[in-house]
Amino acid sequence: MHNPQVPETLEGWSVLHQMFRVRRETLKTLAAPRRKQIEEEATSLLAPLEARKEGPSAAVNLLGHKGDLMLIHFRRTFDELSQIELRVACLGLHEHLLPTSSYVSIVELGLYDMTGKIHAELETRGLQRGTYEFDRAFDEEMARQRENVCFYPINKRRGEAKNWYTLPFEKRAAIMREHGLIGRAYGTQVTQIISGSIGLDDWEWGVDLFADDPVVFKKLIYEMRFDEASADYAEFGPFFIGLQFSAGNLPAFLEGGTPSL
Amino acid sequence: MHNPQVPETLEGWSVLHQMFRVRRETLKTLAAPRRKQIEEEATSLLAPLEARKEGPSAAVNLLGHKGDLMLIHFRRTFDELSQIELRVACLGLHEHLLPTSSYVSIVELGLYDMTGKIHAELETRGLQRGTYEFDRAFDEEMARQRENVCFYPINKRRGEAKNWYTLPFEKRAAIMREHGLIGRAYGTQVTQIISGSIGLDDWEWGVDLFADDPVVFKKLIYEMRFDEASADYAEFGPFFIGLQFSAGNLPAFLEGGTPSL
Amino acid sequence: MHNPQVPETLEGWSVLHQMFRVRRETLKTLAAPRRKQIEEEATSLLAPLEARKEGPSAAVNLLGHKGDLMLIHFRRTFDELSQIELRVACLGLHEHLLPTSSYVSIVELGLYDMTGKIHAELETRGLQRGTYEFDRAFDEEMARQRENVCFYPINKRRGEAKNWYTLPFEKRAAIMREHGLIGRAYGTQVTQIISGSIGLDDWEWGVDLFADDPVVFKKLIYEMRFDEASADYAEFGPFFIGLQFSAGNLPAFLEGGTPSL
Amino acid sequence: MHNPQVPETLEGWSVLHQMFRVRRETLKTLAAPRRKQIEEEATSLLAPLEARKEGPSAAVNLLGHKGDLMLIHFRRTFDELSQIELRVACLGLHEHLLPTSSYVSIVELGLYDMTGKIHAELETRGLQRGTYEFDRAFDEEMARQRENVCFYPINKRRGEAKNWYTLPFEKRAAIMREHGLIGRAYGTQVTQIISGSIGLDDWEWGVDLFADDPVVFKKLIYEMRFDEASADYAEFGPFFIGLQFSAGNLPAFLEGGTPSL
Amino acid sequence: MHNPQVPETLEGWSVLHQMFRVRRETLKTLAAPRRKQIEEEATSLLAPLEARKEGPSAAVNLLGHKGDLMLIHFRRTFDELSQIELRVACLGLHEHLLPTSSYVSIVELGLYDMTGKIHAELETRGLQRGTYEFDRAFDEEMARQRENVCFYPINKRRGEAKNWYTLPFEKRAAIMREHGLIGRAYGTQVTQIISGSIGLDDWEWGVDLFADDPVVFKKLIYEMRFDEASADYAEFGPFFIGLQFSAGNLPAFLEGGTPSL
Repeated sequence: MHNPQVPETLEGWSVLHQMFRVRRETLKTLAAPRRKQIEEEATSLLAPLEARKEGPSAAVNLLGHKGDLMLIHFRRTFDELSQIELRVACLGLHEHLLPTSSYVSIVELGLYDMTGKIHAELETRGLQRGTYEFDRAFDEEMARQRENVCFYPINKRRGEAKNWYTLPFEKRAAIMREHGLIGRAYGTQVTQIISGSIGLDDWEWGVDLFADDPVVFKKLIYEMRFDEASADYAEFGPFFIGLQFSAGNLPAFLEGGTPSL
Repeated sequence: MHNPQVPETLEGWSVLHQMFRVRRETLKTLAAPRRKQIEEEATSLLAPLEARKEGPSAAVNLLGHKGDLMLIHFRRTFDELSQIELRVACLGLHEHLLPTSSYVSIVELGLYDMTGKIHAELETRGLQRGTYEFDRAFDEEMARQRENVCFYPINKRRGEAKNWYTLPFEKRAAIMREHGLIGRAYGTQVTQIISGSIGLDDWEWGVDLFADDPVVFKKLIYEMRFDEASADYAEFGPFFIGLQFSAGNLPAFLEGGTPSL
Repeated sequence: MHNPQVPETLEGWSVLHQMFRVRRETLKTLAAPRRKQIEEEATSLLAPLEARKEGPSAAVNLLGHKGDLMLIHFRRTFDELSQIELRVACLGLHEHLLPTSSYVSIVELGLYDMTGKIHAELETRGLQRGTYEFDRAFDEEMARQRENVCFYPINKRRGEAKNWYTLPFEKRAAIMREHGLIGRAYGTQVTQIISGSIGLDDWEWGVDLFADDPVVFKKLIYEMRFDEASADYAEFGPFFIGLQFSAGNLPAFLEGGTPSL
Repeated sequence: MHNPQVPETLEGWSVLHQMFRVRRETLKTLAAPRRKQIEEEATSLLAPLEARKEGPSAAVNLLGHKGDLMLIHFRRTFDELSQIELRVACLGLHEHLLPTSSYVSIVELGLYDMTGKIHAELETRGLQRGTYEFDRAFDEEMARQRENVCFYPINKRRGEAKNWYTLPFEKRAAIMREHGLIGRAYGTQVTQIISGSIGLDDWEWGVDLFADDPVVFKKLIYEMRFDEASADYAEFGPFFIGLQFSAGNLPAFLEGGTPSL
Repeated sequence: MHNPQVPETLEGWSVLHQMFRVRRETLKTLAAPRRKQIEEEATSLLAPLEARKEGPSAAVNLLGHKGDLMLIHFRRTFDELSQIELRVACLGLHEHLLPTSSYVSIVELGLYDMTGKIHAELETRGLQRGTYEFDRAFDEEMARQRENVCFYPINKRRGEAKNWYTLPFEKRAAIMREHGLIGRAYGTQVTQIISGSIGLDDWEWGVDLFADDPVVFKKLIYEMRFDEASADYAEFGPFFIGLQFSAGNLPAFLEGGTPSL
């Protein structure tokens, strides 16, 4: 039904993460027609944004008390981020959302291609892009999966003894090469987007990870922790973890069903 | 009455801890039939979950202002964690619960067997499993005890001088062996579940302890503090302490009675 | 009128400190008879608890925005702590109390004897216990005084350089002996209860001090700060300071009068 | 109109700082007569307290979101602090005040004489105390000025390397002498009150500064920062900054006018 | 339409930053005429303040959950800051604003000239000041751009090993010279205002940056981070990021439109 067509590369794009707690206690006091209207209004704003090349938005069902819903908006400019933030703020749904956190950054590295892994897999099954069979298998695959999403901000340490920013360039480059090797080893299991936020938000970088299996986040980040890059020089902010779902399923999510991707 | 049949090992299971303050001030404004309905709805969701092998949920009556109720959900996948979280969020009771904290992790080590200690004790009394006498003695024992529960998250220190992640493997293994010896010495008094949360939540591990006598938590953790593992390398998050109770007694708990296990 | 008969020693007792802000803005919207009923219900729960040997509860009028009312409950078990917490939570007064903090611990050292100092003083005046004159003088003395109370939690430092838990036993013992000497020098002016909370709450110990003159708290803790135990190894949590009062005077306190002890 | 007659020295006095946000959104929903009544009740409590020798109270209009109104109460005892806190809590105005912070301490050093500078200046103009001209000029001067107030708490550092409390006495005395010289150089421009709060509140000392020009606070504290006392050993808490005003002008302040001193 | 005429230099001016969340959920419950009235009242206060030489005020549409609206007020005195804060607090709009943060400081360095860059550009196009064509082109340019704004507070580190305030004067001067060179290299792309807040607010300085392109903030601050001034001695507070807009467009902003400059 939905078919996210996102740009192949997101480098240079502005990003806004918005985390909300859903106030079900007020939402459910509404008469059913009004609630339906609110849910459809939100869906009709967000669903078309998932697929568009000119800056997609994605919806994530967060686990735990830090929030229930995370929206990730990619846009060309901060002006466009401001526009989508204001449009979300004017939704009837918004008064039933409690903002709990947010993050502003600009993508530095990363291929945001949540369909790519499925495409690759379908092709290994011998299916050809553009055929009816391919599209149908794709839709089935999408419906079957709810992709896990992990977002967290990081700093490079500027301690009194261990200080990333006073290391010589060559040393930093060598450490990052080693760090990159671990990431690459997980490349088939996890997609990552690194966005920079120095001068924009409270940490230096934001990291988005996408994987079918959340244990991959745990293994990847655990393995990295023994790296010089992480062991000596990384500081980690709060982790937001959840499952991506299609904005078309927002009404189901708001009604308490488990939304499929 | 209730007879928790939980899996023998929980390794690899996903876990969600949810901490709530109970808003008795709004709950008690409800008419008695509505309150009863709400309490029964919550009980009929949670009570069957306690006993099931396919991912149990447990209820804990917390002490102090950090929360009144803690739910611990063990599930096969994050998708199932999301499902139970959404089902709890849709309970009529939920608008009378204020989320105060939560924790997402994956079990690494631990035998969650709250019935095991009782079984062992009954067998030392000469009772045989499967007999009527055994079952009756078991139920009496369960009713008599309210097991104490302690949950807290930890990090391994990555200080500028003392850094766990830059120690050589052999050194870390030796430290953990010593640490494990203390834990084992308390094995008959305390059950522990270690879950990992690197990449999933704000600390690296979560620890759940279960014991008949809370002073055991204090003695065990005090003794461990002099260990190299804790003394030099452990950072402790907030402690949540309380008494487990049967979800079947949720109405009693919500009405202010002290729920028995 | 009230005559606190508390146990001579509290070692091994479980303790719950509860800090509340009194929501006078909602309390005063109640009709006078309802308010009176609420105040009497709370008084009839708490007043009998002050005097009982089997685990007393005490009421403190806190200064400042961290809370207005602190209840200190001593009980034999955590189960009993849970019971009194639930009973307080079910009071009509509770919806007019905002929980701001709490502390769970187990007494390690301390003689809680708020009547002892008065008794000693009366005997130096030549009055004899058990006589009518003694009892009358005692009641007058109690009414005259409002004892100052100070509660704060502490940790022993586990810094990268200064680490209490890596010191040899003899060194720790010597430091604590010196520390104890200062405490003892203030013994006639201040009563202290040390409770342990490793594994139970967010700090390692809780300290309760009781004195006629609050400047004694300041002098004692200032003097101790130059000790090796405090200077190098103590970390201090928030301080709660106030004046103890008889729970029988709870209605006066809630109505804004200054409650006498 | 008002003529603050405060004691020449405040050493040994107990102090309570109370910071509040004014809830204008609820205050303005009141009918004008009720609002007037509330404002007058608060004024009639606070205005007489400004001038009295037996423990004055002062009102400050804070800048920024940390609070709108700060009350500073000087009293002989904590019991009297508790009394004034309870009297403020029982004002009709109180439900329109949101407590945002507070501070409990005992004055160690400082001459609180907000009239002294004006007196001195009037005398240099040749006016004589006790004459009609002096009193009139005094009142004009008071109305003309709104004195700036700065409050902040501090600790002496107990770092692992730099630790105030392990320095020898002579060293500490020398550092404080040097520190005092800077303070004295600003003596004609700024009045300061140092109060101790070890054992009473979360920091070790509180500092109140009063000056005609707020840039003096910035210059004084900047200059001090290069001192050994500040550079190496001071830790600073939150700063509260505002303008003192006469409690008689509380209604004007609450109605949104800028209250004069 | 609006034509900000701000002073050429702001050195010595007092500044108040106010951050608010807009409570659209309450604002939209108002009847349209009342909402219009509120929006016009706020606009008629703020719009004239943008242009005035005697202390301008500016409006910024913040991104993310830290706030929706930031007002920056420049005034001659703290008394005037208090006046504008009280006038904002008495607006009908104010009860629909939730204060989330604020900052009080005094400008030390900086040319606040948001029209300067446009003027310079128009002149390079051959347009002459004072002509009709210049004014029209200016207005078009202003409407076309929404200037990006970044505000954050900083401290100079007073670590136990790295301590800015114990460095000799010459060393500090050399470090700041180098630091200034980077800033100057970005001078055509970014305008900065440095204000001091030692003794006034919780950090030592506040930094305001203005640029057409937000990536400039990221590049500038990233490049500076390798400087000795930042790498070794800077501590950064929260970052507030957004887009300046004309207060005349406040109604459009409040109605959810994206306000142009």
